[in-house]
Amino acid sequence: MAQKPSIPKGTRDFSPAEVAKRNHIIQNIKKHFETFGFMPIETPSFENSDTLMGKYGEEGDRLIFKILNSGDFISKVDDVTYSSKNSTSLTPKISEKALRYDLTVPFARYVVMHQNEIDFPFKRYQIQPVWRADRPQKGRFREFYQCDADVVGANSLLQEAEFVQLYDAVFTDLGLKGATIKINNRKILSGIAEVIGAKHLLVDFTVALDKLDKIGEDKVKAEMMEKGISESAIAKAQPLFEMSGSASEQLEQLKTLLANSEVGMLGVAELEDIISTVDMIGLQSAQLQLDVTLARGLNYYTGAIFEVAAPEGVNMGSIGGGGRYDDLTGIFGLKDVSGVGISFGLDRIYLVLEELGLFPDSLDTSLDVLCLNFGKQEGLAALKLVSSLRKLGLRADLYPMDAKMQKQFKYADKRGVPYVVLLGEQELAGGNFVAKNMKTGDQKAYGLDAFAQFAEAVKSDF
Amino acid sequence: MAQKPSIPKGTRDFSPAEVAKRNHIIQNIKKHFETFGFMPIETPSFENSDTLMGKYGEEGDRLIFKILNSGDFISKVDDVTYSSKNSTSLTPKISEKALRYDLTVPFARYVVMHQNEIDFPFKRYQIQPVWRADRPQKGRFREFYQCDADVVGANSLLQEAEFVQLYDAVFTDLGLKGATIKINNRKILSGIAEVIGAKHLLVDFTVALDKLDKIGEDKVKAEMMEKGISESAIAKAQPLFEMSGSASEQLEQLKTLLANSEVGMLGVAELEDIISTVDMIGLQSAQLQLDVTLARGLNYYTGAIFEVAAPEGVNMGSIGGGGRYDDLTGIFGLKDVSGVGISFGLDRIYLVLEELGLFPDSLDTSLDVLCLNFGKQEGLAALKLVSSLRKLGLRADLYPMDAKMQKQFKYADKRGVPYVVLLGEQELAGGNFVAKNMKTGDQKAYGLDAFAQFAEAVKSDF
Repeated sequence: MAQKPSIPKGTRDFSPAEVAKRNHIIQNIKKHFETFGFMPIETPSFENSDTLMGKYGEEGDRLIFKILNSGDFISKVDDVTYSSKNSTSLTPKISEKALRYDLTVPFARYVVMHQNEIDFPFKRYQIQPVWRADRPQKGRFREFYQCDADVVGANSLLQEAEFVQLYDAVFTDLGLKGATIKINNRKILSGIAEVIGAKHLLVDFTVALDKLDKIGEDKVKAEMMEKGISESAIAKAQPLFEMSGSASEQLEQLKTLLANSEVGMLGVAELEDIISTVDMIGLQSAQLQLDVTLARGLNYYTGAIFEVAAPEGVNMGSIGGGGRYDDLTGIFGLKDVSGVGISFGLDRIYLVLEELGLFPDSLDTSLDVLCLNFGKQEGLAALKLVSSLRKLGLRADLYPMDAKMQKQFKYADKRGVPYVVLLGEQELAGGNFVAKNMKTGDQKAYGLDAFAQFAEAVKSDF
Repeated sequence: MAQKPSIPKGTRDFSPAEVAKRNHIIQNIKKHFETFGFMPIETPSFENSDTLMGKYGEEGDRLIFKILNSGDFISKVDDVTYSSKNSTSLTPKISEKALRYDLTVPFARYVVMHQNEIDFPFKRYQIQPVWRADRPQKGRFREFYQCDADVVGANSLLQEAEFVQLYDAVFTDLGLKGATIKINNRKILSGIAEVIGAKHLLVDFTVALDKLDKIGEDKVKAEMMEKGISESAIAKAQPLFEMSGSASEQLEQLKTLLANSEVGMLGVAELEDIISTVDMIGLQSAQLQLDVTLARGLNYYTGAIFEVAAPEGVNMGSIGGGGRYDDLTGIFGLKDVSGVGISFGLDRIYLVLEELGLFPDSLDTSLDVLCLNFGKQEGLAALKLVSSLRKLGLRADLYPMDAKMQKQFKYADKRGVPYVVLLGEQELAGGNFVAKNMKTGDQKAYGLDAFAQFAEAVKSDF
């Protein structure tokens, strides 16, 4: 019996219409990556396990897809390990490779391996799929694309200002107006923990603070106390909960709050620099917003952190994020190479554009001209015409069989073809063809040699 | 100690220059796929194992990369299987998913799963990586891209003629003139085996015949005899070894040889139809060549088969291939859906273009304009200029630090930037910037507001 086909949980097939929409976003991101001077690299889908393992925390290690060794892999397992029948100890013996979990660790590995060919500062972008053995749910997949741009070997804050510009350029071009680019700095978070006397509880403090949007001030404070942050420390942090006004106003408040923290004041100075640079150049449609509660991947980032929110009224998590990490390549032995990068969330941007109706109609058309098929002789003449139209760049096709006209028109309809060409016995005898505009119903005859004229008419209609 | 990074055998990192060259080929193929009316789909990188296993023969099954189940996978293995310590019987218990081996089986699975959304005839293209646990060697990788176009649900021979046109369009556009598109028909091979009385030894007969190019007539005959094909049968097949002349001359010889084989004569008729259609429309730079020794994936194809050879003088295996398979989707329960498709060999086409120096020089440039950095104030003015140039579509960048001029020029040199912009204290005071053409050494001053004029000059130079 034949198999009833299915695909693995958390993976997707993409139809032509979906690919067109995804490519619309990807092409847009790619174009702006390139105008901003980023260069594409690609890395293998799987890496040696020891490149990936231990880089994403314990939970991350569990979510990495491991590839089974080829051949008689079991015979290479020693008897002690085998008899333990323990998945954790068996895995490294039967699997040496794993699917990449993100594009950042492979990039760090790339930079170190190719350091002698690279001219620093190195601006690379990478748009490739990644895999995570996560529980699938709405908007979370086991295979998804990441679109990353990073700079390594440049610690000037100009990079941060440029990434804000880059977000603005992409979202403006996609028609997604009103995106909010939230910015914070990890040094500010460290500074706050320091001045309130909770330096040793930095992670707990920040994890709680990060929830302010969702659970409100009281619950955040309750969580902090639960984690052992004293009431008086929380009282010292009170200004955080009352932070308001423009970025520069908030920065002034932070300066008061952080006056006694060197690292905190450094964070304030960095943000001031970035924000004033962005102000000077200006944004097209996005807004930059200082958000001191933004925590994002605390253990990873060391300077500015970003997160992008969809325009107000769209219920969607962040559609982009990133930040600066002072020692990207250290894990692979290349020390003191600062990195800063951002990522675009393709799947979420897709959902937002869909919700707001921002995909251009033109993406729906996969064929400009369909020639109907009236039989052997007429079909050959039509094929010649189709071939000429294709050379002029049109997407043209001949219906492959001389099926009933009704069936052929129905096919044209379903593919949303704007122009149908009729080239029957009569037209062939007269040396011409008839083009029918499927939207208006208008018909026009062209000489068989006048295909270029027809092609122009089709193109000018788009 | 830091890890010394490496990547798995048979996989590759691609540098910016390599990605640009690969994309040049991919964009070309994609463009022509689309003008020919093919629509893109994408399928997941991994499939359920039972979708893939048993579809590529025993050797193929071995070469499929299997993914280890997540979590405590070992606990789900029954004791009998576990105690056997046998890789073959253990694999299906600890692995349910596998990386795709080609794009054809996933496509068949796609068609069956989505048959109710698809309008037939369905012309799809797919450009995605595939994985094989093969022994890596020159030009053979464990991760590589396939570029496939297939039509399902159309059994007219027009498709075959169109695929020849498609090969011609792509290779002509890539500047790869003189490619030879070899064509044969599986029915002809069946017919020959039939008339010489070796129908039951069809596979052995064809496998031997396929080697004619490489090992010569005598060795082919020796191999046939070894496989049990009688001397008299081989003598009957003698005309095959003497086949010469144009396609139509060879077809005449085949008609004599195959007069008593119904299937053989059907194959001849199909080839005649395809060849005459191609003749009528004409090819731009490739040639179509009938090659009765072409066997290619015998068990798979049922009608026309194709293989493309690089231009004479280039030592390279086939750079493309394909054919018709009468029952593509039968394995997944959808019967009688004819398919025909071709594939482009990205890696080999890359090597051929490289060998013949056919990559355009423009691919080497990843940046149009680099602004040098003269310090904080000048840098901000330069950033504004860069931002304006980017909005006009130029790939522009500001060197991120005010490093020594020599260092900045060296970086410009290494990135092959055609224009360097100088915007120092003096220029800033004068409200202008100086653009230096790095090829000619010419310099020209522009007012800071005249950036559009400069952008035009840069664009017109390309």
